[in-house]
Amino acid sequence: MNVDIIISGRWLIPVEPEDRILEKHAIVINEGRILDILPTVDANNQYHPKKQHDMNSHVLIPGLINTHTHAAMSLFKGLADDMPLMDWLNNHIWPAETKFVNQQFIADGTRLAVAEMIRGGITCFNDMYFFPDVTAEVAASVGMRVCVGLIVIDFPTAWANDSQEYFDKGQQVHDQFRHHPLIETAFAPHAPYSVSDHPLEKIAVLAEELDIPIHMHVHETGFEVQKSQEEYGMSPLKRLEKLGLLSQRLLAVHMTQLQDSDIELLHKYNVNVLHCPESNLKLAAGFCPANTLLKHGINVALGTDGSASNNNLDMLGEMRSASFMSKGLEKDPTVLPAMEVLKMATINAARALDMAEIVGSLSIGKSADVVAVNLDSIESMPVYDPISQLIYACDRSQVSDVWVAGKQILTHRVLTTMEENQLRHIAGNWQARITSG
Amino acid sequence: MNVDIIISGRWLIPVEPEDRILEKHAIVINEGRILDILPTVDANNQYHPKKQHDMNSHVLIPGLINTHTHAAMSLFKGLADDMPLMDWLNNHIWPAETKFVNQQFIADGTRLAVAEMIRGGITCFNDMYFFPDVTAEVAASVGMRVCVGLIVIDFPTAWANDSQEYFDKGQQVHDQFRHHPLIETAFAPHAPYSVSDHPLEKIAVLAEELDIPIHMHVHETGFEVQKSQEEYGMSPLKRLEKLGLLSQRLLAVHMTQLQDSDIELLHKYNVNVLHCPESNLKLAAGFCPANTLLKHGINVALGTDGSASNNNLDMLGEMRSASFMSKGLEKDPTVLPAMEVLKMATINAARALDMAEIVGSLSIGKSADVVAVNLDSIESMPVYDPISQLIYACDRSQVSDVWVAGKQILTHRVLTTMEENQLRHIAGNWQARITSG
Repeated sequence: MNVDIIISGRWLIPVEPEDRILEKHAIVINEGRILDILPTVDANNQYHPKKQHDMNSHVLIPGLINTHTHAAMSLFKGLADDMPLMDWLNNHIWPAETKFVNQQFIADGTRLAVAEMIRGGITCFNDMYFFPDVTAEVAASVGMRVCVGLIVIDFPTAWANDSQEYFDKGQQVHDQFRHHPLIETAFAPHAPYSVSDHPLEKIAVLAEELDIPIHMHVHETGFEVQKSQEEYGMSPLKRLEKLGLLSQRLLAVHMTQLQDSDIELLHKYNVNVLHCPESNLKLAAGFCPANTLLKHGINVALGTDGSASNNNLDMLGEMRSASFMSKGLEKDPTVLPAMEVLKMATINAARALDMAEIVGSLSIGKSADVVAVNLDSIESMPVYDPISQLIYACDRSQVSDVWVAGKQILTHRVLTTMEENQLRHIAGNWQARITSG
Repeated sequence: MNVDIIISGRWLIPVEPEDRILEKHAIVINEGRILDILPTVDANNQYHPKKQHDMNSHVLIPGLINTHTHAAMSLFKGLADDMPLMDWLNNHIWPAETKFVNQQFIADGTRLAVAEMIRGGITCFNDMYFFPDVTAEVAASVGMRVCVGLIVIDFPTAWANDSQEYFDKGQQVHDQFRHHPLIETAFAPHAPYSVSDHPLEKIAVLAEELDIPIHMHVHETGFEVQKSQEEYGMSPLKRLEKLGLLSQRLLAVHMTQLQDSDIELLHKYNVNVLHCPESNLKLAAGFCPANTLLKHGINVALGTDGSASNNNLDMLGEMRSASFMSKGLEKDPTVLPAMEVLKMATINAARALDMAEIVGSLSIGKSADVVAVNLDSIESMPVYDPISQLIYACDRSQVSDVWVAGKQILTHRVLTTMEENQLRHIAGNWQARITSG
């Protein structure tokens, strides 16, 4: 049978339907989808591809999904470090945003972020920032999958002046991209402390109507929880329950401040938790009890957060950090083993974003979002267990090739849809402008 | 004036004498030592080098020092993960060592580890393993600096059969390399639970005579402390005090189980702490209160531990993890800022190893152990603060060039004294042997 592509790997980790590592298997791709997964020898007998990729020292994995980021903030990478979250936000990031964020900033920052993510094996990201239409267009134009957040926040920004305008523009963005194969949308109320009751209630209703997720920072810091207790007489999570926001649609980011009663709430409403271990550590926000949540049957996925707080968009590193942090905190080296964190960066992420029918695993019928990681590097040799090398020994620099919907967007570490020198030039220009400003 | 080398950097972080970042400065090298550090324009006027390196998008830093590793264990990388320390040690690592460790294993494993370390900007490592003479020879033969541990442990191994033989062989190794410019030695009693009183007392005396450090795992796990309480009626640290081992010579590795009284002991005797954050997290051993120790004036340096427990020898990653871990645990994002962790990987490490007169900073008169990290990568652009990009955004894959004592051992990421394909071949052979065994 004639097909578009065969990618054969030394190892293949499908993630679903079960924990297993296939050796010398191939992915057969036709019209952007996975048509078959079978031993390479059989694939070569049964299928005639237009293009064949023999990845003889590589492990093939599903494209990684970065469930929480603010892509364009890559232009603020390293602008302000080693300081408390509210100081960082109030005195550095928000003033810089007020001064510099416009459509061009978003386009350029997103290009830089998307390039970094592709080179790190990320094929899909869930974003929250201003001008989501620009973010969506940039990502899709270079062949990357994205879920953009329809941002809502109580104060005026370059994107919108008041609550009504946030909603109107969000609706426009949703309508504009509703049939685009690479673009999804989610409501993105910034945080409980920055969005008041009325817009939150409206989001609960509209998200149901539009059938999209709600992406929100929740319980990021102790200060946030305390402020909510003072102002509303209840925790942010309780307030969100009252306002009708707790459901399977909710993607609750960070969740570092959790009582047992909060965990019960998350479980009761099937809320998804988006865990950003490195951002939480760097900003000393607290610890998300990821393993405890998983044990309670709560869906937990991983995100990098934006480059202004992390300061990279490295999901391989984030998986490692998630595993290490949970092992250390739970005083148990068996928790969050390598396969579990890979799930958190793939299938759990796809479930959270309600995209598990198309991405999140190497499964027949799903989109061909595939990443090849070269284990033939002295840093990851010898290989006793490819999943262990992938999570605990590899750098993202070993990501060699990336496909989204069957289109190759990274070839031997070279971006095929973007020009690296141009990105350097763009970053240099913004550096000069922001430094002098 | 005629000199050997000028390396000019876009940025230069000398680490000493003060926290500063020099722009467009050059390092002038003659006969393996740093002759001068000055603005590049002045260097070009005053000196005539045989070789000139213009690193126009790089930050120059002192060579990183990995203060705790078991280099040859790189051949066991990923052999056993996600399990408790004593299970990992008793049921996996020690049996594998019994079966496979011999001189060839040490030579091959060290070659693999040294190659990885050089590619990660490490110019010196403090090792603890069997056949330290082999480790020393391999490292020095490729131009890398090393302090090898004269291992002492209560049970017989491939290296020695009994206490006397450990001492005899240790003394031989010390004598063999005592005048080698790249090789130092330290006593390396494995741990309080694996070395009895008599050899420990002997080490205290001999270390003084030979004027060398004592490198030892101490207070790695709660189990170790508890066992010592049961067996000796005191903590391991108290026992070491009684046996005369607490002094500025002691390099106490891990130190995850510390009471206030322990911290007082460390301070009183000027003990050095070798902090391995990633190994401690991965094995869930506990947390070393690095920032608290530093605040008490205790010297704390960083190490990766061996590749069987980490699973990489990545000091850039280790600096990042050290910063993140302390910020998270102390609930304070201002602790262990980027410059502080760079010190822990350079000058603090040199002080611990009693090598601060020759390495640990880019200072006139010291050995030219220099690392260039290329910040002209989309992953670390824009650059507002090179130290922030180095610690929080860079991968070790951005390490481009490495010099030890003025000899270049990495050029544009290519090893100059080792053959990467040969290393792959060696690793592959051991992989086959260990897998089938």
